[in-house]
Order: sequence, then C-alpha cells, then structure tokens
Amino acid sequence: MKPISYLYGKAALLSSGRISSVLKRTAPETARLRKALLAGYEDDRASISLPGDEALLKRVGAFIGKKQKLDPAYIVVVGIGGSNLGTIAVQEAVFGKLCNHITPKRRTLYADTVDSDAMRQIRVVIEPVLKQGREVLVVIISKSGGTTETIANAEVLINLVKRYKGGSHAENIVAITDEGSKLHHFADNKGYGVLTMPQKVGGRFSVFSAVGLFPLGMMGVSIESLLKGARDMRNRCIAASAGNPAAASAALQYLHYTNGKNISDLFLFSSDLESVGKWYRQLMGESVGKEHDRRGKKVNCGITPTVSIGTTDLHSMAQLYLGGPYDKFTTFVSVGQNNSSVNVPVMKEYDELVENIQGIPLAEVMNAILQGVKIDFQKGKRPYAEILLPDKSAYSIGQLLQFKMIEMMYLGHLLGVNPFDQPNVEAYKVEVKRILGNEG
Amino acid sequence: MKPISYLYGKAALLSSGRISSVLKRTAPETARLRKALLAGYEDDRASISLPGDEALLKRVGAFIGKKQKLDPAYIVVVGIGGSNLGTIAVQEAVFGKLCNHITPKRRTLYADTVDSDAMRQIRVVIEPVLKQGREVLVVIISKSGGTTETIANAEVLINLVKRYKGGSHAENIVAITDEGSKLHHFADNKGYGVLTMPQKVGGRFSVFSAVGLFPLGMMGVSIESLLKGARDMRNRCIAASAGNPAAASAALQYLHYTNGKNISDLFLFSSDLESVGKWYRQLMGESVGKEHDRRGKKVNCGITPTVSIGTTDLHSMAQLYLGGPYDKFTTFVSVGQNNSSVNVPVMKEYDELVENIQGIPLAEVMNAILQGVKIDFQKGKRPYAEILLPDKSAYSIGQLLQFKMIEMMYLGHLLGVNPFDQPNVEAYKVEVKRILGNEG
Repeated sequence: MKPISYLYGKAALLSSGRISSVLKRTAPETARLRKALLAGYEDDRASISLPGDEALLKRVGAFIGKKQKLDPAYIVVVGIGGSNLGTIAVQEAVFGKLCNHITPKRRTLYADTVDSDAMRQIRVVIEPVLKQGREVLVVIISKSGGTTETIANAEVLINLVKRYKGGSHAENIVAITDEGSKLHHFADNKGYGVLTMPQKVGGRFSVFSAVGLFPLGMMGVSIESLLKGARDMRNRCIAASAGNPAAASAALQYLHYTNGKNISDLFLFSSDLESVGKWYRQLMGESVGKEHDRRGKKVNCGITPTVSIGTTDLHSMAQLYLGGPYDKFTTFVSVGQNNSSVNVPVMKEYDELVENIQGIPLAEVMNAILQGVKIDFQKGKRPYAEILLPDKSAYSIGQLLQFKMIEMMYLGHLLGVNPFDQPNVEAYKVEVKRILGNEG
Repeated sequence: MKPISYLYGKAALLSSGRISSVLKRTAPETARLRKALLAGYEDDRASISLPGDEALLKRVGAFIGKKQKLDPAYIVVVGIGGSNLGTIAVQEAVFGKLCNHITPKRRTLYADTVDSDAMRQIRVVIEPVLKQGREVLVVIISKSGGTTETIANAEVLINLVKRYKGGSHAENIVAITDEGSKLHHFADNKGYGVLTMPQKVGGRFSVFSAVGLFPLGMMGVSIESLLKGARDMRNRCIAASAGNPAAASAALQYLHYTNGKNISDLFLFSSDLESVGKWYRQLMGESVGKEHDRRGKKVNCGITPTVSIGTTDLHSMAQLYLGGPYDKFTTFVSVGQNNSSVNVPVMKEYDELVENIQGIPLAEVMNAILQGVKIDFQKGKRPYAEILLPDKSAYSIGQLLQFKMIEMMYLGHLLGVNPFDQPNVEAYKVEVKRILGNEG
C-alpha cells in the first residue's frame, strides 16, 4: 500500500513562480473541500464523502453477500457514461483487460449504447448460460432512472432473463439509482434489488458510490482497499501543503490551457489502464467543457482530453506528438510494479534482430522506451508531468481516481466554471425525445 | 454490396466556393495517384495497388489454405501500430467486438506492447490450449523486422510454443515483413512460414497487404470482398469528378484546420467500429503530423485525431463537444444496416421510465439520438460531415479504409507535407536503443 507520486519539474516548462502563484489561488477551493467533507452529502462536492462512508460500505457489502449466494456466471452491467466507466476502469486495472477470458466465473459484460449488434453479442453469450439453468445478474444503473439507452437495454435483458427464470427472475435484477427516482419506485414494485446513490453525487464522480462498489465487489475487487486508497488520497488533496497532487496537477493543466494548449493527453504506460483513460475522458470533458462560466458569461471553455497507451500509441501517435503543433500537455502514467514478471528469454540468435533485450524483463524494455520518449519530449520542448502508480492494486487505483476527481474540482475553480453540471447534454436529449415522440 | 456515401452540406459550415477552390487544388494529387497505379509498387502511393493485386491474393490465399490445415484454436498476432491496427479494425467490424466470446474456434489475441501483465494474460489463455495438444498460430508482423516490442514478445511466445511442440514448432510460426529484412532471413533459416510486403507500403497503409490479409483470412473474413470494396472505392477516389469522397473529405479537413480547428473527431455510431477509429488515429496522426513540410521548412503541422463512439461518448464527451471551444471538426459515421435487429420489447409498464421506445428496434433509438445530436450541432454552429456505411460487411469496411487512406494522401498534398514518412518516430528509437545498450 504505497502512495502515488505526482512529479513535475523542468520538463513541465513552467516557471516555479507561475506555478506557485496559481497554487495560491487554489486555497478557496481547498477550504470548500474541507467544508464539504463536514457537510456529508449536502454539498456539490459530496463525492469526497463516499470513501469514508462506513454505513455505505456496510450496506453495499451486505447486499453483495446476498447476491453472491445467487452465484451468477455472468454479470451484465447496463449503464452508460458515469454509470459504467469507473467500474470498467477498476475491473480492467485490477484483473486485466483479458479477465473475461481468464476468470472462470463472474464474467462481466457491459451494455451501454443501443446497438443491436452489441446486444445480440451479449445475448449469444448469456442465453446458453441461462438455458443451462445457471444464473445471470443484470445490474441496471441510471442516476436519473430515465436514461433512454439504459432503459431500452434493460427491457431487452429483463425480458430475456424472465423467459428462462419466470416468476423468480426478480432476484436476478438489481437497480442502482437516485433515491426516489422513477426507476427506484419501479424496481421496488417489481421486487428487484435496489441500491441508491446520494442525489448530489454526479455520474462522473460516482465510482465510489454503489454505482461502482456493487458490481466491483461482486467481481471480487476489494472495495475496502479501493476506498482506503481513495480516502488516503483525499486527505492529501484537501491539504494546503505542496504535497497536494490534485491542486498541483490542476495548476499545471490550467497554465498550459491558458497558454493556448487545448489538448491534455493522459499517456498511460500499461495496457490494463486504457479504461482508466476512458473514465478520465468523461471526467475532464464534462467537468470543464462549458459554454458559460459560473457567472453566466459565454466562455466556451474546455480542454480536450485524449488518452494514449504506451508503448502501443508511440506507434500511432508519437509522430504527431513529437513533430506536430505545440497544442498539448502530457501526463505520463507509469506502473512501478506489475502483477507478474515476464522476461525476454535468452535466445541469442535473436540478437541480430534487436540487441540488448535478451533475458531482461519486459517491464524493463517498457521502461527504457518511456525514458527514451521523455528525453525526446524534453529535446522538443513538449511539456509533461508524471504520475507514478506503485502498482495496479485496488488501493492504488482508488488513489488515482480520487486524485483525478479532486483535480477537476480545482481545475473548475481555476477556470471559473462549474465542474458539477452538464447543461449541454440535457439540450440534445430534448431533441431526441421529440424525434422519438414524432415517430411513435 | 452498396457504396459508402460521404455527405456534407450546410452543416459543414463552409461556403461551396471555398470548397470547390480547394478541390481544384487536389487535381495534381489525383494525377499522381493515377500514375502510381500504373507504377505498381515503385511509388510512395504503392498501397493503392494492393487491392487489385491478384498475384498477392493468390499467394496469401494459398498460404491461408495451408495454415488452416493446422487448425489453430488460437491465433496470436504479434505486432504494433500499422502491424495490427488494421487487422483489429476489420475483425471487430465484421465479427463484432465480443467475437472471441462467441466464435468457438479461431479466437485471436494481440500482443503489441511489452507489458508483462498483458503477456501473462495471453499466456494464461493459450498455455492450457497447448497443453491439451491443440494448436496456436503465432503471427509475427514487423515491417522493418526489428521492432523492439514485437521481437521481445515474439521471443516469449516462440519459446512457449517450442516448449510444447518441440522440433515441429516452426509450423506454428509465421513472419510477415519486408522482403529481405533481417526477420525475413531469420524466419527462413528457422523454417517459419514467411509472407512479405512491398517495401514502399508503409505500416499505416498496409492493411490490404499480407499484413492484414493473412490474419483476417485465417479468421474467416472474406478477403476477396474486403479487396473488392477497396478497389471500388479506390476507383472513386482517383476520379476527378465531384463524387470523389477522399478529395472532398480532405478539402473539408484542410479548410477547418487552416481555420484554427486543430482537432478532427471521427464519431462512429457503432460499438463494433471503435477499432476502425484507432486505426484512423494512426493514419491521420502519422500522415499529417509533421515537423517539416515537403520543402524542409519547420511547420509543426498536424491535426489531432480523436475517436468517439455513439451513443456511448455522448455520455462522456458531448458536454465538451457542444459547450466547449470551437476547435473541432466532426465526421459522423453511421451504419445503415446492422447484422441483427433487436427490438425493445413491449413492456408497457416501462413507459413511465422512458416513453416512445416500446417495441421499436434498438437501431431506431440509436438513429433518433444521432438525429437529435446533429440538430444540436447545427444549432450550436459545430461543423460536421457524414459517412454513411451501408453495413459492416468486409466489402463496406474495405471501402471505408481505402477512402480514409487516400484521403490522407490528398490531405498531405494540401498541407504540403509528406504523408508517407514518420521521421520523429525514428528519433526516440535512437534514445531507446542507447538506454537499452547502457543497461545491458
């Protein structure tokens, strides 16, 4: 259980004077975060109360215990955006991207958008399981309770489970939603299991609520460790000291953005962290991509988050990153300790193809490439900072996600925008409802 | 077998006068493409000769026939960047993202970067297969023959196969590389199967060479249809007429980039097309992300390609796209006909959650959302164009990939950069070799 490090130095290409003057401006947000922690779930920053909520952990833990007795062969998480991105991020980080191929039970599938071929694929996988009389758990997650895609997919899946389980199918369905939402009432009426989330916790900040904890706990992730990591990081991120990684990273992002760099690349040197990147895309995209500032002035503010995977994307994006416009600030993420160590075997005859890799761990080759890239970034005056993740344990990932969530609160403060709303998303939904209404 | 449509109109927010004046400037590139087609594989644009190369198809087809006799339970493609992105793109589009869960044989895994946990996961999957005496085919793809990651991973996998297959393991290994590369000689000496690719065809343009054709054919993709689609599209893209989608799309990208939009989003409304997006990222990133123009002048040119999946990323990125800075040009891709049709069941009690979706196809819900988003883009003056993909057949995907490859040639021409090289990628590799040498 080691702490994450956030490192920046000369390679960030910012004077320490400018950084510390921006860091000073984060003080009011630090004060608000501390106050929010005392306010429980009444504040916009409510999500920071989740990692220390023992009652929540107990409630979700008991519910997991109950549903484990069902012994589902497959879990299908039905949710989109903030309702599944955090869960996928933690699952793949902890168990690996190929976990469904490896783990013999508790395989997990995700139904997010309304894609008939994606749904058919899920059906082709789970229908034989149901036919054999084994169990499938469908977890419907929608904060509002009325997300079009989620409800459409949930109907398809409930109908399927019903066909095989008949009257007892209610035990195969769980709904996670806001207290008092229509889905809450609906699920109660049907006898589905229900977990609720605090109203003030938005989707992109909800991974440490039942939204993430329930499915992750069902898969066997240690949700206690995940929350412990989040708690330890939260304590660092509400500190006024220089060791506050969220404030520091927000300050760097802010300075580069106001300096004309409109793209922020999270460059993760670990294949299993790709979905952490996708989770982060939503977090940054929705939190600081805003038409209006807090005072209602039209600003069209926003940093476009991109995600790169090392070394994979060096072979697709490095040419642009090293040769293209100076429009990016990069944060490299590296993993200190992998779960396994695989060495390049000593096959001397291979020396003619690539020298100096015989017998050394793959992780060492990965590290040499990262070092080489960093040197080239420095030479080309491409600014970057670094996150050192000790490992991909639940504790470490809990830290990372909490770090990034509080970073967005600081960044919203610095940019003068509200990091907790998403007014423009609501706008197109109105059009969609009109179109569906006319067709119906 | 229907043609792809590329559509742009008022929503592209460009005057038809500006578009046609840029289109006129593409004429020299059209002439060069036609000339290249006659020059076979001697020209930088050599890749456009691949779809019509009957000898290639015959050679690869015969080799596929031979290796099918091995009846491998798993194929492991060892390659990175241009060596695997096209293959993944076509595989997932044609068979679906969950194809490994569904197809009982010819499952495919990919080893790209040097990640010990990713490699361990592959090992955990294939070692039991080898133990049972079933076959695994390892396909090593490296144009230069000396890609560090690929050779390191290949050594690990060859060593593993050797352990179970002993002296006969050579039949389980195939190398695809440049004619005369060190890997070519090495594989010949070891008795591995070898397929070569034309020297002038770069990695990101190589999907229609043996690089893509061999693994895709092994998986059961109709490579004839893939190439037919590419050929039909190529003929449209070397035409001077207004119906040339590659020139038109390049003109729009060029105009928006020179107008200050440094991000190009490919917004694919189909879950199975995510990897087409990743393939396109490399294609655009490497082709037009350039430090110098063709005359050697420092220009730091480049459009940052981003990939969004509809409707999934509406729940993560739409807030930024609709509210954030005016720094993007979007190309929506929609699929006319899915492989399957799944309807929302009629469960009237669900009407209280979301109205007007009872009994209609999921694809119709998807389409209503896309229409709603397009209306909101228009209202917000966010420019876009559209690609209508008739379906996700090999023929359609062949068209799409060929369209985008020729688009990059036109775009390179308009921007005055060489779309075929990647000099900055070579630079960091020198650092890496130095670091590995010092450690060794």
